[in-house]
Amino acid sequence: MKKIRIALIGYGNVGKAFAQMLLRKQEYINETYGCEAVISAICTRSKGAVMDPEGIDVRTLRDEDFDQSQDALRVIDFGEYDIMAELTPINIMSGMPAIEHVRRAMNRGKHVITANKGPIAWAYRELRDLAREKNVQFCYEATVMDGVPVYNLTKETLMGCKITEVSGILNATTNFILTEMEKGSTFDEAVAEGRVQGFVEADASMDIDGWDAAAKLTALMNVLMDVSITPLDINRTGIGGITKSDLDAAADAGKKIKLLCRGWMTEDGSGNPKPVGTVGPTLVDRDSLPAIMDATSSYVSIMTDLMGGVTVIEEPFEPEIDHTAYGVLSDLLRILLTIRLT
Amino acid sequence: MKKIRIALIGYGNVGKAFAQMLLRKQEYINETYGCEAVISAICTRSKGAVMDPEGIDVRTLRDEDFDQSQDALRVIDFGEYDIMAELTPINIMSGMPAIEHVRRAMNRGKHVITANKGPIAWAYRELRDLAREKNVQFCYEATVMDGVPVYNLTKETLMGCKITEVSGILNATTNFILTEMEKGSTFDEAVAEGRVQGFVEADASMDIDGWDAAAKLTALMNVLMDVSITPLDINRTGIGGITKSDLDAAADAGKKIKLLCRGWMTEDGSGNPKPVGTVGPTLVDRDSLPAIMDATSSYVSIMTDLMGGVTVIEEPFEPEIDHTAYGVLSDLLRILLTIRLT
Repeated sequence: MKKIRIALIGYGNVGKAFAQMLLRKQEYINETYGCEAVISAICTRSKGAVMDPEGIDVRTLRDEDFDQSQDALRVIDFGEYDIMAELTPINIMSGMPAIEHVRRAMNRGKHVITANKGPIAWAYRELRDLAREKNVQFCYEATVMDGVPVYNLTKETLMGCKITEVSGILNATTNFILTEMEKGSTFDEAVAEGRVQGFVEADASMDIDGWDAAAKLTALMNVLMDVSITPLDINRTGIGGITKSDLDAAADAGKKIKLLCRGWMTEDGSGNPKPVGTVGPTLVDRDSLPAIMDATSSYVSIMTDLMGGVTVIEEPFEPEIDHTAYGVLSDLLRILLTIRLT
Repeated sequence: MKKIRIALIGYGNVGKAFAQMLLRKQEYINETYGCEAVISAICTRSKGAVMDPEGIDVRTLRDEDFDQSQDALRVIDFGEYDIMAELTPINIMSGMPAIEHVRRAMNRGKHVITANKGPIAWAYRELRDLAREKNVQFCYEATVMDGVPVYNLTKETLMGCKITEVSGILNATTNFILTEMEKGSTFDEAVAEGRVQGFVEADASMDIDGWDAAAKLTALMNVLMDVSITPLDINRTGIGGITKSDLDAAADAGKKIKLLCRGWMTEDGSGNPKPVGTVGPTLVDRDSLPAIMDATSSYVSIMTDLMGGVTVIEEPFEPEIDHTAYGVLSDLLRILLTIRLT
C-alpha cells in the first residue's frame, strides 16, 4: 500500500493529539483512501527532530530519539515527506517563522496543512498563489473554530455564493472569562479559574487584548471575502477594561457583553471596495445568539448573496476530544482524497 | 461551449426561482465550470411539458408553449437531458411518484437532483445504490433546511467523523405558529397570520401534525446515520394540542415550547443497533439554542465522534431570496464540478 508521509513541524498538544487520532483512524484511512498515512518527521524547537521515512511510532517515541542538531528548516528543506503540517505556536504580530515554513515546503512541491493562523492572517494571498503555481494543496481549516468547517463550508458546500459579511465569537478564552464574570467572579478570578481549567494560557494578553480574535477575523476575511489585510488593519478593543459592574449594568438592561468580531465591505473615498473589520466588547440582547454562547462555545455567521445568513456553532469543548487536531485530520483527509483522484 | 441540459420535473415556486437564479449565475457557471447549463425540459402536472434541447428561455415562456399530451414520465423516459431535477410537491405518506421519477432517470444514466424529500425519506438506500451502480450523481441538499448544507457539511467537510445523533428544529411553519402564539395569538389566529405571510400552506395538517418534521428527520437519519427507516418509524406528536395557556405556563417557568426533532442509535433486545427518532413539542430553557429560534429560523445539530457537536443555523427567510432554489443550484454546481473533473 502506498505510503503518504507527513512531517509535523511543532509537537505540542495539537501535534500529539493529531498523532493519536491518526492511529485511531489508520484502518479507516487505508480502506477509504487506499493508502497508509505515516508520520515521517517530528520537529520541536527544544528537542530537535526525529525522522523515519517508514513511519515513526509515536507510542514508543522517547526524548532521546530526537536529534538536537536538526531544526525545522532543515527538516522542511531536506526531509522526506509529502505533506507538511505547520503546528508551531503562532507569532501573532508577524506570522513568522510559520510563513517561511509554508513557503519552503510549497517550493519543494509539498502539500501544506497549517493549524497556525499566522500564515493566513499575514500572507494568505501570496501562499494561496504559490500553492496554485506549485500545484499543491494548501489547507488551514483548523486555524479558526478548530475543526468546525468554516472555510470549507463556504468553499465546498455554499458554492457559487458570494460572502458579503462575516461575524461571530471567535475567541474562547475571552468568552470564558466574560461568562465567569457574569457568574460573579472578578476579572482576575476569572482568569485564574480559566488557567486551572486549561482555557487560559500563561500569557493571556494576546487573547484579552483581542489580538487572537483579530487574527482569526483577518484570516476569515482574507479567505472568504478575497481581501488582503493583516491583523493591524482590524479596529480592535480587548476585554481588559470590562468590569463586573459593566456586566451587572448590562444584565439589568436585559443584555450581555460579548467580544464580537465583524467584517464587511465598504467603499473608500474614491468608490473602491474597502474591507472593514472590528473586534470589541459589544452589548447584545440576552436572547440573541451571541448571548447564549457560554464558556468555550463559539460561532461564525456568514451573510451570502444567494442563501442569506448561515451560522455554524462549535459546541463547548469536551475534555476527551481535541477539536483542533480533528481540523488537521480533516485537512489530511481532504489532501488524501485529492491524491487518490489524481 | 459544452451544453449541460437540465429537465425540471415540477415548475412551481422553487422551479421558477431556480430558473431565475440560473440566469443570474450563467456567466459565473460558464467561467467556473467551462460549460453552459440550460433548461431543456419543463414539466408541470396541469399544463404538460415544453422541451427544447438548445435551451428554453424562461423569460418568454408562455402557457401555450406547453404540450398537454406530454407528462413527467414521458419527459423522463424519452426527453433530452443530462440532469433531472425533481421539484414536484411531496407526497409525504409514500414519496411517490417522485421515487419513480428518480429511479427512471437514473436507469437512463442521468444525474439526479431532488428538492422533494420523499425519495430520501422513503427510498434513500435503494436510490443511493442505484446511483452508484449507474455511476450518476444523486444530490438532495435542498430537502432539509433548504440550501443550508447539512448533508454536505457532513460528507464534504466533516470527513472521517461518525454521526451519533442528530437533532434540531426542522419545520418552519410550526415554529412560526408557536412564535406567534407566544406573542399572544390563539392557535387559529397564528395559522391565519402564517397564511397571510406565506409561511403556512392552505392545508397545514402535514406541518401541524409533525409529518413534515418527521420526514425531514427520517431523511437526515437515513443519510447521515446510514439507517433505513421511513417517516412511519418516527415517534411523532404534532403541535395541534398546544394551547396559549401551555405556552404561558412554560414562560412562567422560564421556558418555551418548541417542536424538536431528535434521532439517535440504541440497541434492540438482541443487542443489534436500532435507530430511534422522535418529533414532538418539548420544553426548552429560555436561553437555549432552540428557544431563540424564532419565526422561520431552523437549525440542525449533529454529534460526532471526532469533532463533538456542530450546529448549523438557517437564518429567517428573506423575501427576496429563495433558499430552496439555492439548494438546487448548489447541487447543480456540485454535479458540474464532477462532470468537469471526469
